[in-house]
Amino acid sequence: MTLRVLGVDPGLTRCGIGVVDVERNRQATMVAYGVVGTSPEDTLDQRLLVIALAIDEWLDRHEPHVLAVERVFSQLNVSTVMGVAQASGVVIAAAARRGIPVALHTPSEVKAAVTGSGTSNKDAVTKLVTKILRLDAPPRPADAADALALAITHAWRAGSGAAVATTGPGSSSLTPAQRAWADAEAKARRAR
Amino acid sequence: MTLRVLGVDPGLTRCGIGVVDVERNRQATMVAYGVVGTSPEDTLDQRLLVIALAIDEWLDRHEPHVLAVERVFSQLNVSTVMGVAQASGVVIAAAARRGIPVALHTPSEVKAAVTGSGTSNKDAVTKLVTKILRLDAPPRPADAADALALAITHAWRAGSGAAVATTGPGSSSLTPAQRAWADAEAKARRAR
Repeated sequence: MTLRVLGVDPGLTRCGIGVVDVERNRQATMVAYGVVGTSPEDTLDQRLLVIALAIDEWLDRHEPHVLAVERVFSQLNVSTVMGVAQASGVVIAAAARRGIPVALHTPSEVKAAVTGSGTSNKDAVTKLVTKILRLDAPPRPADAADALALAITHAWRAGSGAAVATTGPGSSSLTPAQRAWADAEAKARRAR
Repeated sequence: MTLRVLGVDPGLTRCGIGVVDVERNRQATMVAYGVVGTSPEDTLDQRLLVIALAIDEWLDRHEPHVLAVERVFSQLNVSTVMGVAQASGVVIAAAARRGIPVALHTPSEVKAAVTGSGTSNKDAVTKLVTKILRLDAPPRPADAADALALAITHAWRAGSGAAVATTGPGSSSLTPAQRAWADAEAKARRAR
């Protein structure tokens, strides 16, 4: 069973998007990646509209089982964080409209899953994403690499049966795709 | 010419919505108001979905000329502000999808417009909204009264020809509805 995850590194100026297919043996394959950019010269409503239309297109075209979004932190620059949160709200609502489950992962969870250390820098993440996905060249810009890393992280955490931070306050419930995977895994174990 | 404004006081737990019709002589009439509530027990994607569907319904039913949203500030509680920003992103994108212009107003702008003082408390805002709209009883909860106050504020600022804080970085451009009003006003002046 292949899990298709669409990862989003939300932002108003650059929103990284990456789609990966992950097999049960953890092998991950890049399906597509890109960046949606909007200009600070444009009005907020126009910028959010561009992001909304783009995420709609990506969800329709790639039909992911789950959307993985970077959990927004407020430690960032004050004006930046508002835009990031607004963009993430638009992206999350777009998935929810389609009944696609949404999971949130923190940057350190992503770094830890992909590089083995929660404190790695962006270059290390890009390097490992390139290696994991067997790409000839590193995905650019870094926002796209981050989105791919998020998608890989989600699939690996879901597949390992680890408690995955979903969007709920309980944060330990599995998304439908994760549950489907966990169920399949349980059945496979019983069959052995 | 009547300007119909839909005001939104964004929030995850309670999103206040209010629609007013404002005449050129500043007379404001309440069309509808309400609150969309979501439970902290629900996942973030489900909460944002409820807000997205509700705002769609309000926009479709009332067809406002403009959406006025409270400008989100990051001085608030950290976790609260993220939810407010995500909800506002969903609301703003919903209007942008329909080509409805969006304007942002700060809480102190709203207080100043409605009560005459930028530092009034919530009770004063509710009291004045009740009086301005000639209502028999104050709109409850306060989030709904705030949304109505936002809508009134927007129409009055637009009608007075004052520079209105739109969503752009320039913050001085008029929305199409404001421009339409300003144009009509200019023509009326020439006709006299």
